[in-house]
Amino acid sequence: MAIITLTTDFGLADSYVAAMKGVILSINPEATIVDVSHDIQAQSIEQAVFLLSAAAPYFPPGTIHVSVVDPEVGTERRALVLVTPQFVFVAPDNGLLSAALPEAARDAARPPASPVPLPPAFRCFELVEERFQRRPVSATFHGRDIFAPAAAHLSLGADPSDFGPEVTEVMALPPFRGIERPGGSVLGRVLHVDRFGNAITSVRADQAPNVLSVTAGRRRIPGLVRTYAEAMGPVALIGSSGFLEIAVPGGSAARELCLAVGDTVVVTPA
Amino acid sequence: MAIITLTTDFGLADSYVAAMKGVILSINPEATIVDVSHDIQAQSIEQAVFLLSAAAPYFPPGTIHVSVVDPEVGTERRALVLVTPQFVFVAPDNGLLSAALPEAARDAARPPASPVPLPPAFRCFELVEERFQRRPVSATFHGRDIFAPAAAHLSLGADPSDFGPEVTEVMALPPFRGIERPGGSVLGRVLHVDRFGNAITSVRADQAPNVLSVTAGRRRIPGLVRTYAEAMGPVALIGSSGFLEIAVPGGSAARELCLAVGDTVVVTPA
Amino acid sequence: MAIITLTTDFGLADSYVAAMKGVILSINPEATIVDVSHDIQAQSIEQAVFLLSAAAPYFPPGTIHVSVVDPEVGTERRALVLVTPQFVFVAPDNGLLSAALPEAARDAARPPASPVPLPPAFRCFELVEERFQRRPVSATFHGRDIFAPAAAHLSLGADPSDFGPEVTEVMALPPFRGIERPGGSVLGRVLHVDRFGNAITSVRADQAPNVLSVTAGRRRIPGLVRTYAEAMGPVALIGSSGFLEIAVPGGSAARELCLAVGDTVVVTPA
Repeated sequence: MAIITLTTDFGLADSYVAAMKGVILSINPEATIVDVSHDIQAQSIEQAVFLLSAAAPYFPPGTIHVSVVDPEVGTERRALVLVTPQFVFVAPDNGLLSAALPEAARDAARPPASPVPLPPAFRCFELVEERFQRRPVSATFHGRDIFAPAAAHLSLGADPSDFGPEVTEVMALPPFRGIERPGGSVLGRVLHVDRFGNAITSVRADQAPNVLSVTAGRRRIPGLVRTYAEAMGPVALIGSSGFLEIAVPGGSAARELCLAVGDTVVVTPA
Repeated sequence: MAIITLTTDFGLADSYVAAMKGVILSINPEATIVDVSHDIQAQSIEQAVFLLSAAAPYFPPGTIHVSVVDPEVGTERRALVLVTPQFVFVAPDNGLLSAALPEAARDAARPPASPVPLPPAFRCFELVEERFQRRPVSATFHGRDIFAPAAAHLSLGADPSDFGPEVTEVMALPPFRGIERPGGSVLGRVLHVDRFGNAITSVRADQAPNVLSVTAGRRRIPGLVRTYAEAMGPVALIGSSGFLEIAVPGGSAARELCLAVGDTVVVTPA
Repeated sequence: MAIITLTTDFGLADSYVAAMKGVILSINPEATIVDVSHDIQAQSIEQAVFLLSAAAPYFPPGTIHVSVVDPEVGTERRALVLVTPQFVFVAPDNGLLSAALPEAARDAARPPASPVPLPPAFRCFELVEERFQRRPVSATFHGRDIFAPAAAHLSLGADPSDFGPEVTEVMALPPFRGIERPGGSVLGRVLHVDRFGNAITSVRADQAPNVLSVTAGRRRIPGLVRTYAEAMGPVALIGSSGFLEIAVPGGSAARELCLAVGDTVVVTPA
């Protein structure tokens, strides 16, 4: 069974996501469609990459991950399909495909996003072949007219190389990773605030093996805990996606420590 | 595979939508259920019609579209199934079935809604047959007890004429269409504000072939653009559903121009 | 076809629910996954029980209901599978399994939650068998690593007794039921406020056979109505789940009567 996931900034209140699902099911009525998130902050490519990166690995091999956060829809930015050893990604070429790339491939990217070469065994093609599009293509909704039909045709076995010319570089964001500084401290950035008010940072588990303290929002949090239930005040811990996060059990770290996306945290080693 | 879509004002936080899905799957475990929107403003039939009209055409022929915005639940208002040449619609008879009707059939409707005759090749029946209902029927939740089971039985092939007496008129809203005025200007109304703050109006693409300017929220916007990315300030363009919309790329037209559902816009021809 | 429902406090904006669905589909690609609600107020076990109790009965026999509201994740609280005569429930042992129990079984529970013996024909097992888990198990996301895989393996026919040692008592909340007082009045509590602002109370239909008035938020509401459309001001009625609720048709009882979860209502008999 073909699985197609959707990550967009369209919200669930409007009809945009439903139109995409209708298009997919019109082409492949057997497709299983799973929402990753449609509540990406409008036009936040970084948040889409963060959330899709956190969810994609848990899907079965061959899953087709569609992401559409597309402020430049209708302009010259390319629409792409990227085939990785595990999955297929369909997205505009504006940095969203970072979710498909190993961290090493993103090392070459300059902020906020720049073209990087694809790793070996990754193949990418432009979505230009008209027979795989809904015609006429709207200038403002390629999710419905280009990305959804591409995903549906791919789920039926269409060959990615039939969609258009091969592409060897894609736009990517730099890796989500703290900056390691002389003296051993690590500078991180809040990448996402989740529903519980947990502030998830760019510092990876392997960058915080021995933590004396984490400074976030003017608070100095001693060491790391293992679970949310272990302490009352603000805590730092390695979250389920492998990033350092700041939490206030039973409360909201974002609110209580005034933390927002983009804010800096500092990890001081033991 | 049978596809059933749901459009309601029930929200996703409560258990109402899940109860409907449980009822559908209890009758037809193979049904594919797709949410159009459950965030219809409470009891806004017009918004439900707008959103379902925008999504329905993209589904495969034979899709069963259920919509339940039902302030009069439990009273004498009728529950109906309407079979069109392409789809099947299931809804209370309060104007929601407008989403199933061609524009011409809605021309006869007086605001906010009035009965109109069905076009040829459309057939409609009351949902009164008890064996297609969940018994006892709650006085406050026909979505679960009448509409969901009707959709599920229809998806299994039940004959619409077995549900109850045939109906030749249904309640409809007037068409979503600007008012063309002497001199060539067109008076429109904001039908919907989407997640991006785009204000979608009742003016159709064919009513705005040559636009000199659009006046909305005290602003005069020159001409039309083709994509959101073309300009910085407020722009007017033909959106993906074929209606004129007002947008502020990277911002919110609704907020920046103080536009809300029901507000007037004026299109001045070139 | 195997149906798995999900009830969590994870929200839909983050990737947590998608990760659970990916894990389920990786184990059983044919599973049909239905969201009950992910908007449970953070860590509100009572609200999760209320909503799952309201939705679960409408699903086909054999449906697997997963609920994860889990403030103690990663600690010694147990993870359980509970097989009832109709359904299978998977949840942490913190009171969530109340949704699986008949009211009589919950009579023994002391607030907020305490262990109660299982009724005959109910069997329960700990989820400790590693081959049914995603390894390594995160300390903070058992939804993904323990509960989702358990549900998926159960949907493929895994024997519940293979998951771990049998359990004879589970944590339960006292039943949702008004307190009957000398003189015949019934004291209820607001259990949930729905999207329409309806305040759903703990008073059951059978506790309110002859109602003179309901006092809620300093207002005295005379008698009961049958439908929302029957009156203009605040009304009391038996809602679709069999509980007394307070509504303001076309408005919001919660807002207009200042009612919130936990507030007291009093039913005075005729």
